[in-house]
Amino acid sequence: MNTSTPKGFRDFLPEQSNARQYTISKFIQTFRLFGFEPLETPAVEFAQTLTGKYGEDEKLIYKFRTHGEDEVALRFDQTVPLARVIAQYPNLPKPFKRYQIQPVWRGENPQQGRYREFLQCDIDTIGSTSALADVEIIACILETAKNLGFSDSFLEINDRSVFSNLEPKHITAIDKLKKIGDEGVIEELVKKGLSQEIAQKTLSDIKNAPITDSLQTIFSDLEKAGYKNGQDFKFTPTLARGLDYYTGSIFELVSPQYGDKSLGGGGRYDKLIGIYSGNDIPAVGFAFGFDRVMDALSKLKLLTNQTSASKVLVTIFSKALAENSIKTASILRENNIPTSLWYETDSKLDKQLKYANLKGIPYVVIIGPDEAELGLVTLKDLGEKSQETITLDEAIFKLSS
Amino acid sequence: MNTSTPKGFRDFLPEQSNARQYTISKFIQTFRLFGFEPLETPAVEFAQTLTGKYGEDEKLIYKFRTHGEDEVALRFDQTVPLARVIAQYPNLPKPFKRYQIQPVWRGENPQQGRYREFLQCDIDTIGSTSALADVEIIACILETAKNLGFSDSFLEINDRSVFSNLEPKHITAIDKLKKIGDEGVIEELVKKGLSQEIAQKTLSDIKNAPITDSLQTIFSDLEKAGYKNGQDFKFTPTLARGLDYYTGSIFELVSPQYGDKSLGGGGRYDKLIGIYSGNDIPAVGFAFGFDRVMDALSKLKLLTNQTSASKVLVTIFSKALAENSIKTASILRENNIPTSLWYETDSKLDKQLKYANLKGIPYVVIIGPDEAELGLVTLKDLGEKSQETITLDEAIFKLSS
Repeated sequence: MNTSTPKGFRDFLPEQSNARQYTISKFIQTFRLFGFEPLETPAVEFAQTLTGKYGEDEKLIYKFRTHGEDEVALRFDQTVPLARVIAQYPNLPKPFKRYQIQPVWRGENPQQGRYREFLQCDIDTIGSTSALADVEIIACILETAKNLGFSDSFLEINDRSVFSNLEPKHITAIDKLKKIGDEGVIEELVKKGLSQEIAQKTLSDIKNAPITDSLQTIFSDLEKAGYKNGQDFKFTPTLARGLDYYTGSIFELVSPQYGDKSLGGGGRYDKLIGIYSGNDIPAVGFAFGFDRVMDALSKLKLLTNQTSASKVLVTIFSKALAENSIKTASILRENNIPTSLWYETDSKLDKQLKYANLKGIPYVVIIGPDEAELGLVTLKDLGEKSQETITLDEAIFKLSS
Repeated sequence: MNTSTPKGFRDFLPEQSNARQYTISKFIQTFRLFGFEPLETPAVEFAQTLTGKYGEDEKLIYKFRTHGEDEVALRFDQTVPLARVIAQYPNLPKPFKRYQIQPVWRGENPQQGRYREFLQCDIDTIGSTSALADVEIIACILETAKNLGFSDSFLEINDRSVFSNLEPKHITAIDKLKKIGDEGVIEELVKKGLSQEIAQKTLSDIKNAPITDSLQTIFSDLEKAGYKNGQDFKFTPTLARGLDYYTGSIFELVSPQYGDKSLGGGGRYDKLIGIYSGNDIPAVGFAFGFDRVMDALSKLKLLTNQTSASKVLVTIFSKALAENSIKTASILRENNIPTSLWYETDSKLDKQLKYANLKGIPYVVIIGPDEAELGLVTLKDLGEKSQETITLDEAIFKLSS
């Protein structure tokens, strides 16, 4: 029997899932601190809702027809469903600030290391043209990155109007600067019809482009909110972020100790949300690359102690002493200490310790005949490989820290 | 343009989603307290993985074939994927205690008030035959219900062996006792071939069935863990919970102030998890009915103050005073107070207050010229319709409580 998952689809076993859930909880905590509210949309939309929104990528949409429905499609991103929601519920108070953390499905080629199911993690503010809406998205991203432990992270910020005199194909070339460097960009601009001289001047002009008035307002407000220019955010005139989508500010989050790859990107897009309503609706938002963030957290070792839900395993010494262990587990939980209780009453202690090690549970409580008689417990620290026989209150104190 | 969702698929706007996320967080917190670890499986499985597992309901599976894949199917429950995981990763340490909270998809008839996408919320312990595994599932459910605010909730508990002398069709009849009462059950037993006299005796025998040895062990351990027979759990010999699935203990969670409908059910099922591995693997688990729980929480008014992520809206009095508001919002957030900042610098105060009311944000901070000069803020309590002009520290203290 084939028990695998289809290519591009992943299981997340407890160790990985714990790390993911921890990261998601940090996202949510920070998003809520900034007043963003959750939105959930269904996995399945009418196919026509998604049709004509994703250009070339449309072929990657999972479409099907079952159970007497019109043709339906799996969620492909969270922006088109957001636009649909804005049109469907016109009375939602504006600004509408929402976060959305749900999986999306794309029929990508799994040979290229792409996943067919992955989590998207978005914040967006709909219905405000104010620079403060941009500022708060940016501030929220910076706080989220800090709360996750990316101590050196900052935002590269630009404005789409920096490119207003350039053709799209030339913007695409400049967008590759980080990957292919100055020489590469100039070569590509030449390939796309510019002379060597004009290509050099074009890149140089962009690199030296002055900051726009609207970015100046955003930067000034960011400073009022306590963020530092050159440290928390940097004007980066060569940042382009694709072509058709953005209408104003654009930004990417980077953490140099992780490398060049951005941890997410966003900006202002005032033309997209109104597609179903038939009028322009201003919007600014950001999407974390969740798999990228998980990779970065893992490589930078920022996920220590997130591998097990349980802080302690309460072992069972013998059938006769099981009651002591049951009661101890109850008391630990009353004190909010995530606790696993061993279930078999006839297991060797070795087997139970091995289980705790395998599961990454950091502490073990043992209540043998001596401990039971003295009203004490032995608390074993599996990391430090040390142990002490102490009162349950003392153990609770240590396990709570 | 049709901007609706397909029938049976729902959007959850912020007010609802906040309540859902709050409930999920209570689930997770309690599951982790009992040492259950998260598992995530993909939305898409090979169709053959799901085929032949759901009997009559198989026709409700969403199956399709796209992007050059073998036929695939959307997750229909979380138990079959769990069985697949157990077979695919045979080295997972046992007992394997996992929680899983993901949507499932079923092509139900939406006319009957059923949803085609809904959240499942399961805890299961795989690989232990010990009564303590049953006990801990039960204890975890009781704590979860208590943490959600169901103060009168308890578990009805039975053992499948109570029905060992009965034919399945007669068990089905007894399973309806809560819905149709004694008379109804007897009538149905008669329809299914028993004489009136035997039908009455059958029901009476079940009602007076003695507790089994294995339940006795479970009850005794529950008492050691601090739960009370007759209050937290009750032997309910007429509880049947379907037919083919369970092999030992069975239980349902009820909250009388909500009514007869159970908030979830579970039990021991030692034959199912091994379907892919080819050998019996013991298991015991519980599934909360998430939509039912949400309905109960709402009807019992246990979701007050869960409708808005923000505790406070910081208004902007004028463009000149925007900086004071920006700084105040930053400080509130540094103090972990979920804060919305108004974004327009030229809005009337009335409009901003109306927004806070619409969003269900309980407090508003106003910094006008007088407050700015005195270094104070006006904190308005929209529920109490009161306000006071105080220091920011005092406001933080009030908002933190």
